[in-house]
Amino acid sequence: MKLLITGINGFVAFHFLELLSIKNEKLDILGIGRSTQCNLDNQFPKLNFIYKSIDLLNKDAVSLVISEFRPTHLLHLASVSSVGHSWHYPQESFVNNTNIFLNLIDQIRIEGIKCRILSIGSSEEYGIVDEINIPIKESCPLNPVSPYAVARVSQEMISNIYINGYGMDIIMTRSFNHFGPRQKDIFVISSFAKQLVEIANKNSTNHSVTVGNIDIIRDFVDVRDVVKAYYLLLKNGKKGETYNICSGKGFSLKEILIKMCELLNIEVDIKINNALIRPNDNPIIVGDNKKIHDELLWTPEINLEQSISDTLDWWKHNL
Amino acid sequence: MKLLITGINGFVAFHFLELLSIKNEKLDILGIGRSTQCNLDNQFPKLNFIYKSIDLLNKDAVSLVISEFRPTHLLHLASVSSVGHSWHYPQESFVNNTNIFLNLIDQIRIEGIKCRILSIGSSEEYGIVDEINIPIKESCPLNPVSPYAVARVSQEMISNIYINGYGMDIIMTRSFNHFGPRQKDIFVISSFAKQLVEIANKNSTNHSVTVGNIDIIRDFVDVRDVVKAYYLLLKNGKKGETYNICSGKGFSLKEILIKMCELLNIEVDIKINNALIRPNDNPIIVGDNKKIHDELLWTPEINLEQSISDTLDWWKHNL
Repeated sequence: MKLLITGINGFVAFHFLELLSIKNEKLDILGIGRSTQCNLDNQFPKLNFIYKSIDLLNKDAVSLVISEFRPTHLLHLASVSSVGHSWHYPQESFVNNTNIFLNLIDQIRIEGIKCRILSIGSSEEYGIVDEINIPIKESCPLNPVSPYAVARVSQEMISNIYINGYGMDIIMTRSFNHFGPRQKDIFVISSFAKQLVEIANKNSTNHSVTVGNIDIIRDFVDVRDVVKAYYLLLKNGKKGETYNICSGKGFSLKEILIKMCELLNIEVDIKINNALIRPNDNPIIVGDNKKIHDELLWTPEINLEQSISDTLDWWKHNL
Repeated sequence: MKLLITGINGFVAFHFLELLSIKNEKLDILGIGRSTQCNLDNQFPKLNFIYKSIDLLNKDAVSLVISEFRPTHLLHLASVSSVGHSWHYPQESFVNNTNIFLNLIDQIRIEGIKCRILSIGSSEEYGIVDEINIPIKESCPLNPVSPYAVARVSQEMISNIYINGYGMDIIMTRSFNHFGPRQKDIFVISSFAKQLVEIANKNSTNHSVTVGNIDIIRDFVDVRDVVKAYYLLLKNGKKGETYNICSGKGFSLKEILIKMCELLNIEVDIKINNALIRPNDNPIIVGDNKKIHDELLWTPEINLEQSISDTLDWWKHNL
C-alpha cells in the first residue's frame, strides 16, 4: 500500500499514524503538510514515512507529488475544519476544503492512477434537520447552514461526479464531532478542557469560562475510534458509498462542561461571549451509525467519560 | 443604479445591454471581462458604460474593483458554462464558476455594500429528475450529474449562506438552455446552426452534421427573453428566492435539428461523434415557470421557430 495522507501535521493524522504503527503492514507513507517542519519527526520509528511540505492550493505542486508518488490509497485529512472560523473567513474555508480536494483527485484522474480515496466529510453537512430525522441516517437530505458545511457538501458532490462520471474509487464519510487528546483549542471541547485545566491549576478566584451557545446538542466520538473507522473504510469500504461516523448519542455542550468540572472537581462561572455565537446553527445533530456497523463491524469503543478524561489529562501535561 | 456586470464580453451580456439601451434609466455600468479588449466598443452609445479587464479568480483585483465602484446591483454573468467542456476540464469549470462568485460576494460582504446580487444558476442543477417531477418546479430536489452542475449548486448553496448568515440581498436563477444570435458554437444549438448554414452555403455534396446525443430533451428559451427576466429580477425579485427561467416546453435536439433543416431547405446526414457524448447526462429537463410568471409577470415572448430562424440568420451573416 502506497498511502498518501494530507493534513499530516493535524490532530486526526497523529492518531491515524498511531493506529498504523501497531499494525503489521508493509506501507509506504507520504505525509503532506503545509508547514516546512513536520510535527511528527521520530514519533513513529516503525513506520516507513516521508514528509513533504506542500500548499495543496498550489495545483502544480499537487500534480507533481501525485505523479511522482502514485498513491494506491489517499486519506485526505487536510481541511480548514472549524465551523466558527468559516463564518469569519468563508472564502478561505471554502477554497481550503473544496479546491484542495479537487486539485488532488483531478490529478489522480488525469494520471489514471488506481487509487482508493477516502474523502472526509462532516455531520455539519446535514445542517438543520427535522426532529423526525434524528438520529440522522445517511439518506437524510443535506441542508448546510455554515460556509464550512457548504464546502463539505460541495466536496461530496464533486466526489460523486468523479465516481459516477469517471469511475473513480472514492468513499465518503460524514464524520461527527470528534475530539480527544491533541486537538487544538479552536474546537469547542478542547477549548473547554484547556480553560478548565487552567482554572484547576491556578486555584485562582477567577473561575470563569468563556463559551458560545452551549445548548446545542452534538454527537461526540473519540478521535481514536474515528481513525479506526477510516482504516476500515480504506480497506473494506464500498466504492461510492457515504458513511456516518458517530456515536449515536447526543450530549449538549453544557453537559460536557459540567462533566469536565466534576472530573476536575471545580466550580466555574459561565460567561457567554456573543462573538462565539454563530449567525446560524443547528440545534441538534445526532447520527445513526448502523451502516458502518453492519458493513464493517465498526463501533465506537471509547466512552464519552473516558474521552473527556483523556482530553483533560492531555491539557494537564501540555499547557 | 450602479450596475456591475461580469462576463460583459459574453453572449448574454450583449443582449442585456441591448435591453438596457432601450430603457430610459440613469445607469452607471461597469462591465468586467477577461480580455484586455472589450467586444462592445461603441455598440451602445446611449449607455454610460466603462470596461475593465479583470481575471475574477484574482481575489485582490476583484476586491479593488468592488471597493472602488461600490455597485448597487451586480449581474454576475461570468461563467465557464459549457457542460461538455466541464467533463474535460472539471477543475477549471469548478473554480471559474464557484471561486469567482465567492470573490465577488465576499468583498461586497466585507465592505458592507448594500447591493442586490443576481446569481445566475442553471437547469443543470436539477440533474436526473424523476418523470413525476416534470415540468420541474423550483422545489424539486437538486441532483447534479456534471462538474458544471455541481459548481452551480455550490454557488447556490454559497448564496444561501450569505443570505441567511450575513443578510445579503441575493436572488438566484436556474436558467434553462438559452440560445439565440451571437452564441458561440461550443453550445449545441449554435453548433448545429453554424454547421447547417455552412452546408447550405456550400451547396457541396458533403451534407453531414456532427452531433452528440440528440435524443435528450431540453427546455429552450430565447436569450432575449432571458435578459428580460434578469432585468425584472434585479428590479423586483424577492431577496433569497430562486427562480426558474424557462419556456415550460420540451424539445429534443433532434427536433431542433430537423426544424433547422426545414428552414434552410436542406437535407443532411447525421454523424454521431462519441466524443460529444457525456459520461453522464439527464435525458429530460423541462421547467415550470409559474413562479416568475406569477410574481413578476414574466413570460417568454419569442417562440422557438423565431429563435431558431434568428440564430440561423446570425450565422448566415457571421461565418
